[in-house]
Amino acid sequence: MGRMALVLEYDGTRYHGFQIQAQSPTIQEEVELAVAKVNQKRLNIVAASRTDAGVHAKGQVVAFDLESGLGPETWVKALNYYLPDDIAVRSAYPVGDDFHARYGACCRRYIYTVYNGLSPSPLWRHYSYFEPCSLDWKAMDGACQALVGTHDFAAFSESMGKRSTIRTVYEARVWRERAIVFFEMAASSFLPHQVRRTAGALIRVGRGDLPMEAIEEMLESRRPGLAGPTAPAHGLCLMGVDYGDLLPKVGGDDYL
Amino acid sequence: MGRMALVLEYDGTRYHGFQIQAQSPTIQEEVELAVAKVNQKRLNIVAASRTDAGVHAKGQVVAFDLESGLGPETWVKALNYYLPDDIAVRSAYPVGDDFHARYGACCRRYIYTVYNGLSPSPLWRHYSYFEPCSLDWKAMDGACQALVGTHDFAAFSESMGKRSTIRTVYEARVWRERAIVFFEMAASSFLPHQVRRTAGALIRVGRGDLPMEAIEEMLESRRPGLAGPTAPAHGLCLMGVDYGDLLPKVGGDDYL
Repeated sequence: MGRMALVLEYDGTRYHGFQIQAQSPTIQEEVELAVAKVNQKRLNIVAASRTDAGVHAKGQVVAFDLESGLGPETWVKALNYYLPDDIAVRSAYPVGDDFHARYGACCRRYIYTVYNGLSPSPLWRHYSYFEPCSLDWKAMDGACQALVGTHDFAAFSESMGKRSTIRTVYEARVWRERAIVFFEMAASSFLPHQVRRTAGALIRVGRGDLPMEAIEEMLESRRPGLAGPTAPAHGLCLMGVDYGDLLPKVGGDDYL
Repeated sequence: MGRMALVLEYDGTRYHGFQIQAQSPTIQEEVELAVAKVNQKRLNIVAASRTDAGVHAKGQVVAFDLESGLGPETWVKALNYYLPDDIAVRSAYPVGDDFHARYGACCRRYIYTVYNGLSPSPLWRHYSYFEPCSLDWKAMDGACQALVGTHDFAAFSESMGKRSTIRTVYEARVWRERAIVFFEMAASSFLPHQVRRTAGALIRVGRGDLPMEAIEEMLESRRPGLAGPTAPAHGLCLMGVDYGDLLPKVGGDDYL
């Protein structure tokens, strides 16, 4: 009966990531269970990005095959009725049978959030990494410009064996709003832990522990695992996924 | 040995309000226990506002008498070490013996947050009230201007017996940032549930269920309990408290 794409927002705090696992709560399992209640058949759903344990999303995209002739608005309401309150469907779109949530995505956008006040923030504790040392966000912003373009990002991931570590980064930027430093990166796709390793290296630049040029030198080294440390998962949020003409622009611009 | 004022941020989700109660977790108890660990003596702390169960704070102010000669920065670090992660001290200031956190405050500022998207937001679920019906925030902003000034706010609280229901509102405004509608009100002090009752009435104006003039008519009626409904506690946050020259401007401008 066709295929449906969903845009999901979730608080990843209590989940062991997107991908289904025996014994542990996952986003995929919760969404598949809710879809099965409406669809009357349990089906595998495919996501744009398999976010890690503790990572959040404002604009994750998943797709699945329909068994029910319900319209998109009814799907949104029905799924939100069954989903727990830390996962929600923001919108639903009928798509063609050749739509693939993972392979069809041409750009993913993440934001890494650092709470850079003197004391930790209770209201932001689940959605930001706390760094008390004052960060030079302009140095961080300057440093991350070296990442834009098509490069071998081996240094910003673990060893990938024979798989390619070449990716295209479309945009990278760092900015500050009061006590919060945001790092945003958009790319064709990302290597495992790439955003969190980049954030970890940029925080070292911001603290003055590394010079601005260090990011470019890490990139050029192509040595797996050189960049880091891997910044904690709870600061990361998948903001949106772009499918060109296949789906309207989805996801949020920021946390609002 | 003198007196200390603390600026507190907290996530009120799991607390039964500020004021201490037998059997239930409260902000006051947590802070008093932490202070006692540093001060070596349990003392009563006084707060600018006794926030209700579920209400948050970015800039609550409390004061207590010192038994220890530690400096303000040491106090901040020591208290944050002992406090649970949903309560934090943002700053500490030595104050005179005549400083009173409640009676010395000349202005309290609250923000009520409404998530006004088509679906509920998992990331904002603890810090906003979800209203799916599209709100006319300009009508809400226009309506709340009638509250500015010194008025009898009886209609915006419960019956207060013989106690005065006259208060001075310094500022009231509503604005929108993407899916979120914010309502901010600053006043000399507030009647019980005044901000939440005002928010409840303004949401009815925003939905088109009440005309803009209804807020002014409620005010003029002076009938206890006329305004409302009382909007849920989890959308409310005490942003800051003003003590004139007695304390630096404290608290946050917004959730960042």
